[in-house]
Amino acid sequence: MVSIGIDLGGTNIAAGVVDESGRLLAQAQRPTKAQRPYARVIHDMALCAKEAVQRAGLGFSDARLVGVGVPGYVDQRTGVIAFCTNLGWRDVPLREELQKHLDLPVLADNDANVAGFAESVAGVSRGTRSNVFLTLGTGVGGCTIINNRIWSGAHGVAGELGHMIYDHGGILCTCGARGCFERYASATALARMGREAAEKYPESALGRMNPERINGKTVIDAARAGDEAGVSAFDEYTTHLAWGIVTIINMIDPEMIVLGGGVSRAGDFLLNPVYEKVAENRFYKTLPFGEIALATLGNEAGIIGAAMLDRA
Amino acid sequence: MVSIGIDLGGTNIAAGVVDESGRLLAQAQRPTKAQRPYARVIHDMALCAKEAVQRAGLGFSDARLVGVGVPGYVDQRTGVIAFCTNLGWRDVPLREELQKHLDLPVLADNDANVAGFAESVAGVSRGTRSNVFLTLGTGVGGCTIINNRIWSGAHGVAGELGHMIYDHGGILCTCGARGCFERYASATALARMGREAAEKYPESALGRMNPERINGKTVIDAARAGDEAGVSAFDEYTTHLAWGIVTIINMIDPEMIVLGGGVSRAGDFLLNPVYEKVAENRFYKTLPFGEIALATLGNEAGIIGAAMLDRA
Repeated sequence: MVSIGIDLGGTNIAAGVVDESGRLLAQAQRPTKAQRPYARVIHDMALCAKEAVQRAGLGFSDARLVGVGVPGYVDQRTGVIAFCTNLGWRDVPLREELQKHLDLPVLADNDANVAGFAESVAGVSRGTRSNVFLTLGTGVGGCTIINNRIWSGAHGVAGELGHMIYDHGGILCTCGARGCFERYASATALARMGREAAEKYPESALGRMNPERINGKTVIDAARAGDEAGVSAFDEYTTHLAWGIVTIINMIDPEMIVLGGGVSRAGDFLLNPVYEKVAENRFYKTLPFGEIALATLGNEAGIIGAAMLDRA
Repeated sequence: MVSIGIDLGGTNIAAGVVDESGRLLAQAQRPTKAQRPYARVIHDMALCAKEAVQRAGLGFSDARLVGVGVPGYVDQRTGVIAFCTNLGWRDVPLREELQKHLDLPVLADNDANVAGFAESVAGVSRGTRSNVFLTLGTGVGGCTIINNRIWSGAHGVAGELGHMIYDHGGILCTCGARGCFERYASATALARMGREAAEKYPESALGRMNPERINGKTVIDAARAGDEAGVSAFDEYTTHLAWGIVTIINMIDPEMIVLGGGVSRAGDFLLNPVYEKVAENRFYKTLPFGEIALATLGNEAGIIGAAMLDRA
């Protein structure tokens, strides 16, 4: 039997049909238009799912469930989205609404958990018993897999790895705390480091750019090209990311640490310095430690992981 | 059937006989005299175990195993102590040596894991499925329990909660990194904060003490008495401890966080400000979070947890 995964994003809804092994058979997309009443967004999620099922040459009766990845916090028991900051949602009865349109069990979880689980079922961390997934995007999302299952914690809030206190009293985070890891390891942080380096090296390529156009990608491109400001900012970034991974190793010691999200598209250019810095700085210098790897499923992770939530 | 637990400390060896429910039936102690060859220390561990068994009116044949808590890193497969800094041991074949003296299965684990597991089986966190144990002593040790078992990680090094990077670039740690949590949350850290506050408030009771006599306990006593320097140092300490617990909640979200070790003897005087600061500073302000509690087994935790290692 197949299952249906829906990735609810701030910009787009993507739905797909996934087979038992985690392979994506067909998909469909629609814009989220998040300012609409939630009932209309959820109706479009159902339409999107229907379209994907039809494209796969199947019907809803061929599916065992619908899973949804949500950029927010879902109460797993009730299927209610408690918070979803991007969409401005609070206490939205996702399961109840979605079941008005399709007669299937509905499961839902946080989008980082869903993507991390997808990698663990059908991506780079497949076959590991434990792994930690980090999305390096606007913020830093996380998912911890223990004994092949998502570790959601006792109250469903585990895996907020972007909000480890990493630099006590440091940069103010959107969450209200200071020094959260995501202020040092997100794409947003990389862009900030790029702007700071641009000011320090005004003659560099980054220094000559309009500061408003500096983002994670421009910093990585500048670093690859050997630009002084780019190299300096990227070195600062990989140092922070590596120290955060050291904390994850010292606390959780997973079999693998998977890097996903925008910054991870830098590939080995990111992976190599991070690996070296982790190897140098971990606590048990002579013992083996978890592999550090790049996510392989890209944007499809959200659909695949959601479709597999009954095994999570 | 009973089992035998041995707590191998830098100063003393303590052995005890423990029943199936985790109750300590009898115990015996000897000085470690750590400078001796390891074979003699391990011989004394066996003698200590024998004495405890005799005091319980039993023999080795009544025991199902011997468990050992070690202040270092043990390879669980081989029973070899890879490092044990306090004792100056490296690659000591603990299981093999101990089995020369007693014909029982030998299990061993890190002392913080053993104590945390003891609380989980027979102490304050009994009945929880997940909990995190922190020992606030010379350093900060940790143990993470997930689904009622010690989570040792993929390479046996999980739970080094004292070495979370908490203040990037901050105080140099004995491990070589900067800003490790134990530099801010150990009894050693509390003493340092006390000495700093004593300098700042020379007219206070702490300020008038010989700085060399300031330790965790004197700072707590001064804080309880309302001494300006003591109150200031203890407030700084509880703030750091609370922020570290926030990281643990954001990452692991355990059902309970258990505080043990020397500083935890301050009781509610420690617990109340820490609880308030955690409640105020956690990420999900409106959701429930793990209980914070004091360890209840004290020094016996090392014996009890070691004796239960076959269930860990």
